[in-house]
Amino acid sequence: MLRATSVICVCFANGAKSIIPVETLEEALEWKAKGYLAAGERNGVQQKGFDFGNSPFSYVGNNIKGKEIVLSTTNGTQAIHAAKKAHKVVIGAFLNISALAHWLDNQGKDVIILCAGWKNKFNLEDSLFAGALANILISAGNFKTDCDSTLAAVLLYENAAKDIYGFLEQSSHRKRLAHLKLEKDIRYCLNTDKTDVIPIFQLDRLVAYGGE
Amino acid sequence: MLRATSVICVCFANGAKSIIPVETLEEALEWKAKGYLAAGERNGVQQKGFDFGNSPFSYVGNNIKGKEIVLSTTNGTQAIHAAKKAHKVVIGAFLNISALAHWLDNQGKDVIILCAGWKNKFNLEDSLFAGALANILISAGNFKTDCDSTLAAVLLYENAAKDIYGFLEQSSHRKRLAHLKLEKDIRYCLNTDKTDVIPIFQLDRLVAYGGE
Repeated sequence: MLRATSVICVCFANGAKSIIPVETLEEALEWKAKGYLAAGERNGVQQKGFDFGNSPFSYVGNNIKGKEIVLSTTNGTQAIHAAKKAHKVVIGAFLNISALAHWLDNQGKDVIILCAGWKNKFNLEDSLFAGALANILISAGNFKTDCDSTLAAVLLYENAAKDIYGFLEQSSHRKRLAHLKLEKDIRYCLNTDKTDVIPIFQLDRLVAYGGE
Repeated sequence: MLRATSVICVCFANGAKSIIPVETLEEALEWKAKGYLAAGERNGVQQKGFDFGNSPFSYVGNNIKGKEIVLSTTNGTQAIHAAKKAHKVVIGAFLNISALAHWLDNQGKDVIILCAGWKNKFNLEDSLFAGALANILISAGNFKTDCDSTLAAVLLYENAAKDIYGFLEQSSHRKRLAHLKLEKDIRYCLNTDKTDVIPIFQLDRLVAYGGE
């Protein structure tokens, strides 16, 4: 959620045709050599040779309408590949949370909220988002859970809801990225419902559900 | 914490000489054939051919003073084996939490609190205990952390502290075990400071720190 899934939502909100998530930077550069736009981030920093990093503001003002973008990030793109055998894989962030919850509620399927975390570890920000999403789904009445990790995530969210930015100030990710001056990015990613887009994984790439 | 580490504390509090944690029931029965007492539990239930299950009350009134007990449980013994390359491995439960925190505080070492969980998944009860222990260590002043999972565990504990039994009523483990009528076991395991014993792993078995 900080920042890969938020960036994916922003790309589609700005008219991208598709996003191709790849695990390695090398693979991303191969796509770039074929003419795709390429976004590459590791440890919070845009990598050499790439058109974009992992900031939602990279995609504002850039002409990405109708473009295909290959994307490789520290954690997010790996999570997409880990999940790709699921019935459907969709992308969530606070930026599209209500639209996503509504879409999930209409599917009539069980939902697993897969948190990308940070380098295979638990992180607060993704768990908070998972709790926020679970909270909406449960409140809507069609979902229930006795999964301990979901119960804990909902509780985290309830504790943080009044001031998510303040709550995340204590998290390790904020400290990891503090020197990168990403406050503006983070505050932007904590906005809810900036878009109704549902990025969905089809074959080898993400497209906007119902879109082009 | 529900119930393997609590049972281990109870065994030493009742004078056991050592506990040999083994991963499989077959291995435990091999030890039993050599004359050891054997405790075997899977999915909350004592297994056939074993002297004990995983209830702390199994060890009250039994003559285990000076005895060596081989133990195999669904999650707890696997966690001990996963951790055994650490500098030292000690066992924690609410039953010995203050003594354990005091001991850890005196070691001058970093601490990883490894939650056994349930079948390789997160569970509420172990995370709550981890939060309680981290809370004591941090409050004592010699420890600090920016680990997100520790921050989340402490927050869970702070939410649950006033009524841990009630809080756990919602957890999946309680539902898993509800039909086994383990309320008495669970309430017992939530008692704090029933013993000062520190079970410590040495070579292939747990012994009471400073004990025989």
